[in-house]
Amino acid sequence: MSQPMVGIVMGSDSDLPVMKACADMLDKFGIAYEVIISSAHRVPEKTAAYAASAESRGLAVIVAGAGGAAHLPGVIAALTPLPVIGVPIKSGALEGVDALYAIVQMPAGIPVATVAINGAQNAGILAAQIIGTGDAGVRARVKAYKEDLSRHVESKNKRLSEIGIEEYLKEKTGR
Amino acid sequence: MSQPMVGIVMGSDSDLPVMKACADMLDKFGIAYEVIISSAHRVPEKTAAYAASAESRGLAVIVAGAGGAAHLPGVIAALTPLPVIGVPIKSGALEGVDALYAIVQMPAGIPVATVAINGAQNAGILAAQIIGTGDAGVRARVKAYKEDLSRHVESKNKRLSEIGIEEYLKEKTGR
Amino acid sequence: MSQPMVGIVMGSDSDLPVMKACADMLDKFGIAYEVIISSAHRVPEKTAAYAASAESRGLAVIVAGAGGAAHLPGVIAALTPLPVIGVPIKSGALEGVDALYAIVQMPAGIPVATVAINGAQNAGILAAQIIGTGDAGVRARVKAYKEDLSRHVESKNKRLSEIGIEEYLKEKTGR
Amino acid sequence: MSQPMVGIVMGSDSDLPVMKACADMLDKFGIAYEVIISSAHRVPEKTAAYAASAESRGLAVIVAGAGGAAHLPGVIAALTPLPVIGVPIKSGALEGVDALYAIVQMPAGIPVATVAINGAQNAGILAAQIIGTGDAGVRARVKAYKEDLSRHVESKNKRLSEIGIEEYLKEKTGR
Amino acid sequence: MSQPMVGIVMGSDSDLPVMKACADMLDKFGIAYEVIISSAHRVPEKTAAYAASAESRGLAVIVAGAGGAAHLPGVIAALTPLPVIGVPIKSGALEGVDALYAIVQMPAGIPVATVAINGAQNAGILAAQIIGTGDAGVRARVKAYKEDLSRHVESKNKRLSEIGIEEYLKEKTGR
Amino acid sequence: MSQPMVGIVMGSDSDLPVMKACADMLDKFGIAYEVIISSAHRVPEKTAAYAASAESRGLAVIVAGAGGAAHLPGVIAALTPLPVIGVPIKSGALEGVDALYAIVQMPAGIPVATVAINGAQNAGILAAQIIGTGDAGVRARVKAYKEDLSRHVESKNKRLSEIGIEEYLKEKTGR
Amino acid sequence: MSQPMVGIVMGSDSDLPVMKACADMLDKFGIAYEVIISSAHRVPEKTAAYAASAESRGLAVIVAGAGGAAHLPGVIAALTPLPVIGVPIKSGALEGVDALYAIVQMPAGIPVATVAINGAQNAGILAAQIIGTGDAGVRARVKAYKEDLSRHVESKNKRLSEIGIEEYLKEKTGR
Amino acid sequence: MSQPMVGIVMGSDSDLPVMKACADMLDKFGIAYEVIISSAHRVPEKTAAYAASAESRGLAVIVAGAGGAAHLPGVIAALTPLPVIGVPIKSGALEGVDALYAIVQMPAGIPVATVAINGAQNAGILAAQIIGTGDAGVRARVKAYKEDLSRHVESKNKRLSEIGIEEYLKEKTGR
Repeated sequence: MSQPMVGIVMGSDSDLPVMKACADMLDKFGIAYEVIISSAHRVPEKTAAYAASAESRGLAVIVAGAGGAAHLPGVIAALTPLPVIGVPIKSGALEGVDALYAIVQMPAGIPVATVAINGAQNAGILAAQIIGTGDAGVRARVKAYKEDLSRHVESKNKRLSEIGIEEYLKEKTGR
Repeated sequence: MSQPMVGIVMGSDSDLPVMKACADMLDKFGIAYEVIISSAHRVPEKTAAYAASAESRGLAVIVAGAGGAAHLPGVIAALTPLPVIGVPIKSGALEGVDALYAIVQMPAGIPVATVAINGAQNAGILAAQIIGTGDAGVRARVKAYKEDLSRHVESKNKRLSEIGIEEYLKEKTGR
Repeated sequence: MSQPMVGIVMGSDSDLPVMKACADMLDKFGIAYEVIISSAHRVPEKTAAYAASAESRGLAVIVAGAGGAAHLPGVIAALTPLPVIGVPIKSGALEGVDALYAIVQMPAGIPVATVAINGAQNAGILAAQIIGTGDAGVRARVKAYKEDLSRHVESKNKRLSEIGIEEYLKEKTGR
Repeated sequence: MSQPMVGIVMGSDSDLPVMKACADMLDKFGIAYEVIISSAHRVPEKTAAYAASAESRGLAVIVAGAGGAAHLPGVIAALTPLPVIGVPIKSGALEGVDALYAIVQMPAGIPVATVAINGAQNAGILAAQIIGTGDAGVRARVKAYKEDLSRHVESKNKRLSEIGIEEYLKEKTGR
Repeated sequence: MSQPMVGIVMGSDSDLPVMKACADMLDKFGIAYEVIISSAHRVPEKTAAYAASAESRGLAVIVAGAGGAAHLPGVIAALTPLPVIGVPIKSGALEGVDALYAIVQMPAGIPVATVAINGAQNAGILAAQIIGTGDAGVRARVKAYKEDLSRHVESKNKRLSEIGIEEYLKEKTGR
Repeated sequence: MSQPMVGIVMGSDSDLPVMKACADMLDKFGIAYEVIISSAHRVPEKTAAYAASAESRGLAVIVAGAGGAAHLPGVIAALTPLPVIGVPIKSGALEGVDALYAIVQMPAGIPVATVAINGAQNAGILAAQIIGTGDAGVRARVKAYKEDLSRHVESKNKRLSEIGIEEYLKEKTGR
Repeated sequence: MSQPMVGIVMGSDSDLPVMKACADMLDKFGIAYEVIISSAHRVPEKTAAYAASAESRGLAVIVAGAGGAAHLPGVIAALTPLPVIGVPIKSGALEGVDALYAIVQMPAGIPVATVAINGAQNAGILAAQIIGTGDAGVRARVKAYKEDLSRHVESKNKRLSEIGIEEYLKEKTGR
Repeated sequence: MSQPMVGIVMGSDSDLPVMKACADMLDKFGIAYEVIISSAHRVPEKTAAYAASAESRGLAVIVAGAGGAAHLPGVIAALTPLPVIGVPIKSGALEGVDALYAIVQMPAGIPVATVAINGAQNAGILAAQIIGTGDAGVRARVKAYKEDLSRHVESKNKRLSEIGIEEYLKEKTGR
């Protein structure tokens, strides 16, 4: 794979099933990336080194996912001038509200671009949109993707209008 | 002013005192911008036209602030391939939690890069970081800004260690 | 089917199992309707066109269901003078609280008549009540429906008083 | 005044400053209304009698505002086939979240069309939209009102583009 | 059964599995009761009549359980001078928080004695404590019950100290 | 003063302005009471002794108010067979939601009859209703009080219908 | 086992599966402990006696876990000068938010060192850190434990970089 | 001042008025401390260095206060084997709930001993209790402090019983 432009970082491998959706989107957009497990709490020096070297290693965007008292995106954002996208992961008793607040409520000076709880797919699209501000090819692929989304909704709507609610639900659930 | 790279959009002029902090940051980073009042609910066609033409008019990033059932950032994001930054505005009985949820919880396919409630200053920094992915000058100014932040904290800490809590609080409150 | 009076719109076919209860109630009241999948985010122009033409096509009420950052009801309400009923759909980590806030907290000028989370059945009844303000037949059917509800509760209460808690629970659970 | 078409009911005269905005909108739309203080808890029989007679007295819509454990809209909805609009009033330690939940989360069978916390103005507009489903004159006035809203936003936007943020804020705050 | 002293009322038979725990406690304390399904929304007149006649029929306490926009306890409390105990039932997307707020946040003048979400067992004990203020026999049984609770905890603690965590968990889970 | 029947206990004298409303209601109903400051955390033994002796000293009901991690009502309930009414006090950053949860969510076996946040007046009424289950005089005064409430609402409603919204608001605000 | 330094207390044996993680950590650090079931509500005198004697019996730290209106940690903290660690247990409709608020929001004068909902493992580590302030051996074991955590994350990251997302997820889920 | 045993760290000097209460308590207990302004986000390397050197410099406990996405306590805890006490600071639209969740919900392995929102005074007491586990003098002062608390409550209670509610409130408010 070519030189990665996006670093996908997560605090624990239990976040990987969620964060995979970000990698999948980047694959779709043809954007090279690297995937790292690096906890702000369990390997703080390594996380700091990763963040501090990200720009010089050629990354353009970092996507960081974390649950609970989710410090990873903010800790990385503190140490890089690159835009950092935060993905709150749903976990534990508070089901991701803790992670959302711990990521989005960053103090003045150090933003984290926060997406929805478990919104790793959108993190990938947002990374592509950011890269697309300087890369016409990526921007064209983002536009094509949005057109695909539209067509997908329209084909569902067409099918529903043809066969009605009852049949549609049967078809959808395979029963 | 030169061709704007950032569009700052808000649903109501009551959001302007908060959103001004975004404009101030862009001024600091030397990034040209335009400021627009355009409600997703009160002027929906105008808002749609603004979003749909943003890319071709040369904008790189849109920052949209809204309170309550804050639809503006998402409605714009639906109609442009550009990255959209959403600023939840504190207002009304729910004090911005409604706006936060209405902005950050976007469905798969259409991300909004959400910052803190009333976090317009960070929206400006994030816009600069995004533009900085393709503009070394802007990135350098982002880095300089972060170094200023550090120096500012360090000078406060130095002062506190010199004069102690009591004197520091007197000095700070001017009493 | 005759000319529809109610448009039932939803952002995704994953909302259909919930929204079906609205259609079922309208069937019960003999009110013609149409069912549309049309996302405010994925097909924004189509959604706008649908809303803008709703009045001239003869609709009287629109029922819109959406989850997450649920913009669909508000986006439609912005573009039609018809009353719009919003159904917050339970989904994701916030379980519909996000959708409730994003639907009910509309700004001054553009109301959405919000029902309970997943309250699609009540959306159908409310649509009938609205149509009933100008249609004595529909109003009569609403009244008959409410009398049925009463009788249903009373028959359950009668059965409980006859057989007691233990037997009633056995009968109800079929064990 | 002519025969009222809308009943505006509130649980306490402390709700009147908020609920007045509903009356003001109905005045604007030329819709006759009555205003009643009638607590579901302090005068339950009178409230029940009011609700039960509303239809036969010629009302088309009831708007009910209440704070705290806001039962008034639901109690009225239980006793009339008319559409009932509920306005959660901000009050007490929970600042209207209690009233919102107590109004919007009605059980299947008995909807209340809920608007935003303190959203009495929107309740008036929604009442007009409902009456407008059977009254072309009212509907025309709703459309004119929405056009006014648009013009209002556009004139603000025009002024902002003419004089810039600093001057606009000075003009707005009168300083 | 002798003349009931407690009326156990619920809005739907879906509440019966929870509310049964109240009846079980009253059985244990030897207090006669009646069990009624009577929705504040679906049979409002019947509910009102039940509440209004409760005192004259010899009831001392009413226990009312409801979920969602839980109006039943408050509606009954409005129509009787008897103490009313409210049980918020866990149901729907808000899992009982809506019911808790709709029951506990009653306005000045009309209290409802609220217990925990799904706390029907405690509602039974509280009813017994209230009756016990005028009935030495019931009070003695309440005291004996509390002593049983203590002994139960102490025997568990003794067993745990004898066999340790591992064995205790095996014994408890039957594995 | 005669032998107190109600003990009003609070954790701090900062709760006294709220809890006074309970004493005022008991004065109105002619029920003797005592008022105690006794923190579950700062004077735990004294609080325990107070609770343990309450029954034998002739109290019938205890009303306990507390804010924050409000343990006082539950700690007292653990040590007496009397009914305990809990008043969550609004204070601190969570504004009484913490106190509400800490009071109402008592475990099975030990109920606390919870009223609204800052609902001390209702705590006094509830205490009177409880005492009224065994005292016809008190019950008659509770009924008279509820009739007063009704008359009060009706006179306000009459005044509003006579003079209209504008004049009523002027009269009420004294402007 | 030697003289216990930590008392692990819980309100119910239903908390034992969660609280076991605290005991396991103390075993790992070689710190002797005792495990007690002692409800603040069901055996209040026993709980008080336990807390009051803890210091003189040689304990250094108490860890208390409780759910719902979780009074146990605060009740113990009121009666001992030892540091008390509180573990909010997830249970019931509020899923531990009630317990978190009831434990962490202690009034001035009586702190409880609160860990995450169900965070019993961290309670054990925190107890060790506290004991480690006066015991170099324990502190060394805490440091070794943190190094183990680091190595564990690093080995996962290494494995992920070797085999990629797809294979890693297969390996992890055993499919 | 002698060698500090406690480090009081805060992210901004706007936290100082709250955090001063911690310093005041440590003064009262005769425990030496240092006060540092060191943001996890604005001076991340300095914060890391501070945490990493804390143990070797002789600190026993660190108290860290932060608001919003409060990372400071967790970031420090990641880099020291010392016990870290976290103080969530009330600030911004979420009024400290964000800080509470971001501090208390730490992942397994890295605990932060969390106190109430703005609970800096209790953080000081908890630090003294921790130091007291190895220092009989400090422990004695903690015990004396708790006895003072008791006496303070008892004197207030005595005064209230002497002069009654009305006079007490006058005396307290100085009116």
